[in-house]
Amino acid sequence: MKYRVSVLQYRPEFLKKEENLKRVVAMLEPIETDLVVLPELAFTGYLFASYDEVDLVAEAPPEGLVFTTLLDLSHQKDMSILYGFPEKADGVYYNSSVLINPDGSFHVYRKVHLYNREKLWFEPGEEGFSVHIAKDGVKIGQMICFDWSFPESARSLSLKGAQILCHPSNLVLPWAQEAMKTRSLENRVFSITSNRTGTEENAGISYYFTGKSQILGKTGEILKRLTDNEEAVYTVEIDPEEANDKTISGKNNAFGDRRPSMYYQP
Amino acid sequence: MKYRVSVLQYRPEFLKKEENLKRVVAMLEPIETDLVVLPELAFTGYLFASYDEVDLVAEAPPEGLVFTTLLDLSHQKDMSILYGFPEKADGVYYNSSVLINPDGSFHVYRKVHLYNREKLWFEPGEEGFSVHIAKDGVKIGQMICFDWSFPESARSLSLKGAQILCHPSNLVLPWAQEAMKTRSLENRVFSITSNRTGTEENAGISYYFTGKSQILGKTGEILKRLTDNEEAVYTVEIDPEEANDKTISGKNNAFGDRRPSMYYQP
Repeated sequence: MKYRVSVLQYRPEFLKKEENLKRVVAMLEPIETDLVVLPELAFTGYLFASYDEVDLVAEAPPEGLVFTTLLDLSHQKDMSILYGFPEKADGVYYNSSVLINPDGSFHVYRKVHLYNREKLWFEPGEEGFSVHIAKDGVKIGQMICFDWSFPESARSLSLKGAQILCHPSNLVLPWAQEAMKTRSLENRVFSITSNRTGTEENAGISYYFTGKSQILGKTGEILKRLTDNEEAVYTVEIDPEEANDKTISGKNNAFGDRRPSMYYQP
Repeated sequence: MKYRVSVLQYRPEFLKKEENLKRVVAMLEPIETDLVVLPELAFTGYLFASYDEVDLVAEAPPEGLVFTTLLDLSHQKDMSILYGFPEKADGVYYNSSVLINPDGSFHVYRKVHLYNREKLWFEPGEEGFSVHIAKDGVKIGQMICFDWSFPESARSLSLKGAQILCHPSNLVLPWAQEAMKTRSLENRVFSITSNRTGTEENAGISYYFTGKSQILGKTGEILKRLTDNEEAVYTVEIDPEEANDKTISGKNNAFGDRRPSMYYQP
């Protein structure tokens, strides 16, 4: 099947949710695609310094300005949209992502592996890694930023049937884009890493985000990689069903050749 | 601690075990090191076409020309030697590696994930992944060639305490050297991939081996990488104990942050 997947990269302004949303909607309006992936904490910025700041921009789907706006846009443009946001639920906060589909269905993922000071404001997700259905029945796996560092994240999603790893990110370490090649390759799945750009400062801390958002094929080959700093949306046509074939050689299969009884998996 | 680790790359001649052994001994004689890693099936060549060919060059440590010669060399030069060989045991064959120490101790690993036509001659290892002690108490993990493709191999060894992944190889696919960066990085361990070079032909099949043997640091940085074709031994000084520290950030630890209850590990 022919399936258009897109990655959006830009620089959000810290806590300016409405302005960021307007900018992203303007970037998405001219795009024709089936699935677009946006960064982690895509509309809020990253460097929170208090619960009050998190609460100011957190949402609880199906409520919230960002969610309702993108739900409409998903329906209007007939495309799945996946983005990261601070989720408020039961009085606590999660670093979450949500897949919104044109039919109005949506699926939240709560980040399992929190990075550094995220641990000050966010609770770790307790629901683990699940496959969700995007437009046209495509099976996607949601993982957020630092989840890349643990091979179990992408492995869990892929073994559950994900065809495309969707990876909203705010990357500050130098390794993820290259390591995601291994994540695609070892699991024979496509992956879409949407990273933000620019430097953000708050409360005396400064982070530089590395850009280089990318769409990778099932052997980790780069189908599209953006530069460090550009703000843009790029679209690539893939066949997600290729990810169902785990063949490595005439006698090897990436999943069939796994030997779990030999593994130490504490 | 200061510890010298070495990687040897060369082109063995198919089935010419004695000649290959002489060449490798001549390459090792001038070397001063603590641990040297040689390729998979280091003295026999790779493209077997019958059990008879395998049987011709297989060994059963502590017997065998290669084993006894390198046991002597290990003692004489006070260095651990790790190499791949076809192992004969209980009437069947394994694609194995062995760590030989200057004190005469040795530890065999039987390849868990067999590549392609290896499945015609070799049984898969049934002992899984264990940490073995090399010279000076350094903890090494043995994995062979195609084991790289399964993140569970390096993960198992590292979670059991390996400081250095020792990875004898006969690589023909284009990905392993780059993917091993991810293996080192995700586990914060050193890795030594010893690959062979050259083209081998037998019974109408031809394989080109990719060289590029390498020694990687604990974030996957290249400490030494050889070219495609050179035949040489290179030595790098490392501190294996650095691999005991799994710190990623002030609040993150590569092992401590694992969340096994969230993982799907069938």
